Amino acid sequence: MTRPLAVVCVSGGMDSCVTAAIAGRDHRLAFLHATYGQRTQAKELSCFHALAEHFAVERRLVVDLGSLAAIGGSSLTDRSIPVREGSPEAGLVPTSYVPFRNAHLLATAASWAEVIHASAIFAGAVWEDSSGYPDCRPEFYRAFETVVHLGTRPETDLRIVTPVIDWTKAEIVSRGLAIGAPLEKTWSCYQAEDVACGVCESCQLRLKGFGEAGVPDPIPYRRGGRP
Amino acid sequence: MTRPLAVVCVSGGMDSCVTAAIAGRDHRLAFLHATYGQRTQAKELSCFHALAEHFAVERRLVVDLGSLAAIGGSSLTDRSIPVREGSPEAGLVPTSYVPFRNAHLLATAASWAEVIHASAIFAGAVWEDSSGYPDCRPEFYRAFETVVHLGTRPETDLRIVTPVIDWTKAEIVSRGLAIGAPLEKTWSCYQAEDVACGVCESCQLRLKGFGEAGVPDPIPYRRGGRP
Repeated sequence: MTRPLAVVCVSGGMDSCVTAAIAGRDHRLAFLHATYGQRTQAKELSCFHALAEHFAVERRLVVDLGSLAAIGGSSLTDRSIPVREGSPEAGLVPTSYVPFRNAHLLATAASWAEVIHASAIFAGAVWEDSSGYPDCRPEFYRAFETVVHLGTRPETDLRIVTPVIDWTKAEIVSRGLAIGAPLEKTWSCYQAEDVACGVCESCQLRLKGFGEAGVPDPIPYRRGGRP
Repeated sequence: MTRPLAVVCVSGGMDSCVTAAIAGRDHRLAFLHATYGQRTQAKELSCFHALAEHFAVERRLVVDLGSLAAIGGSSLTDRSIPVREGSPEAGLVPTSYVPFRNAHLLATAASWAEVIHASAIFAGAVWEDSSGYPDCRPEFYRAFETVVHLGTRPETDLRIVTPVIDWTKAEIVSRGLAIGAPLEKTWSCYQAEDVACGVCESCQLRLKGFGEAGVPDPIPYRRGGRP
């Protein structure tokens, strides 16, 4: 029997890499990537293609969500807003929040999934141990699944799966490595594309994860790496 | 006191024109338009700008949802699928359905509304007397409002308003004209940009509305117009 097809939203970071490894255990894979004028989009795109090769996916789709850059409101898409350095502050939405970005990603994933007859959408959102983006919380994904159910053809039946949403970054590293996720092919830094800065929120979260897992991070850092 | 700001999704058709007239009674207006490789996108865009002039809007944003054309699956975006002629068939999703398109529009509207501090999103969806697109049903819009509430900043509070969703096309014509909606500046035809074809589903619905309202349609038709 043919395994079902899953669309996986793959940013090129380690959360979506581990999510793809989980999806690949019982699905054929279709990888979706979005550029939206973010600072490190060339690096993220090259990681996406490296991961698509690694997982030998059946299909890949790269879309440009250029409207997010036109709308702005985030340090990732607006060069006049600096990327914050240091650990995320509890209870604050960081400047790197791209307004409602994950709704655009999920809408694209659902449209594509409907056309190629996939049965699930996998997304690598992380909530508790992450930056506090409102569009990463579990209730958002559950509500979006309802929207997909209501807004697509009656015969379209799509689950939205977020397998790592409750994991800590340390669990993502250790469990991901245990199932063979190629974390050396991923990128997390928000502001550099050659050697990771080590100090932006995203590098800090990644390094904390590797540190707590007791594993060296295989990617190069300018400062603060190899904790 | 300054009136609140509303983002209005304006396709250039008569439903969104009447919706804009309703929104304008107690909101300042920000008009959003999307192109997505649809057959008549140049004509729709020119109607959008004509309507924005008419309503003297404060802001306008045109976005390209190019991913919808890349994904395909609709006669509006895929030239190999013919546009169906004749009245919509009850219970069938027509070939002109663009998979999950309205989720992309609403996501864009919500991102923009969050950045410009609007308090409402108006959309001109019509359900009962329309083509049977699943992403036009009232439950879809209510569920999307929940998604917007969950996926945006805690201080962002956006209503989604669909004032004509339960109206017939005849009510849209007669009530729209009664409040001064400039229907002569709108376009509905799915396949022609100079003179409306009069036979596609969208022309048929529009002509039925004008016919039942007992008012001549001010736009030119190739055949079937002036019922």
